[in-house]
Amino acid sequence: MRRSKLFPTSDEAETAFYDAFERGDLAAMMAVWAESDAVVCVHPRGPRLVGFDAVRDSWTQIFAGGNTQLRIKSTELRKFDGQSVAVHTLVEVLTAPGQQATQSVCSTNVYELTDAGWRMVVHHATPLADPVAVPAEEEPASGRHTLH
Amino acid sequence: MRRSKLFPTSDEAETAFYDAFERGDLAAMMAVWAESDAVVCVHPRGPRLVGFDAVRDSWTQIFAGGNTQLRIKSTELRKFDGQSVAVHTLVEVLTAPGQQATQSVCSTNVYELTDAGWRMVVHHATPLADPVAVPAEEEPASGRHTLH
Repeated sequence: MRRSKLFPTSDEAETAFYDAFERGDLAAMMAVWAESDAVVCVHPRGPRLVGFDAVRDSWTQIFAGGNTQLRIKSTELRKFDGQSVAVHTLVEVLTAPGQQATQSVCSTNVYELTDAGWRMVVHHATPLADPVAVPAEEEPASGRHTLH
Repeated sequence: MRRSKLFPTSDEAETAFYDAFERGDLAAMMAVWAESDAVVCVHPRGPRLVGFDAVRDSWTQIFAGGNTQLRIKSTELRKFDGQSVAVHTLVEVLTAPGQQATQSVCSTNVYELTDAGWRMVVHHATPLADPVAVPAEEEPASGRHTLH
């Protein structure tokens, strides 16, 4: 696969990731990911996908489902940037077309400096629980299924 | 807080993390975390906790709930190790005392090289869905609440 874009920083890779996500642009999305069998992607409530092909298949299905024109606002960003590995944790606030309700997703995004610039190697996304609810793992464990 | 242990590698920090987790040892657990307002911890189905104090409070509650003698097996580890930032993604297989059923949790663990050795800065844990279930975000988006 030929790639026209190189991302000189992890920030630029992240901007490209969310831009591709909002537009539902599969080619642009996969240009952000490292072409590696080691990449990991966890969509909200989804399985753990490992490897470029499995990750591409998942985005193909997501974009086929009509997620175009989604609006994603990145908030509460924390960065741990190294020389070759960078981690951004943030809260995505997603709004679907024609809707006012938003959904908050907590994401950990990992980028690695490759020969082709910075690429995403991990996207781990979790729907955030209702902030007023008591999370299961903070209650006594006895009689509960949640261990952690 | 005085600390007697320094972790010369991210692997050793990770071993200490799961050892403290299994034993329900709060002091040992918090010796793994960086003493920083920027650390992030997401327990399964829980909120996004930011900062050392919030993270410590969460582990205090988890260990008070009787999670001691939990057994945690790390599987399917993928590492992205840089000189100052290291990311380990894995599947934790948890077994509660006296039970045969296991629970699988997908975790992204991030470590940073500090003046006091490698410390954990992010623990993002997600319960894995039933592998035979179709994840919500891979179905057509119309009429669903899950956008991503």
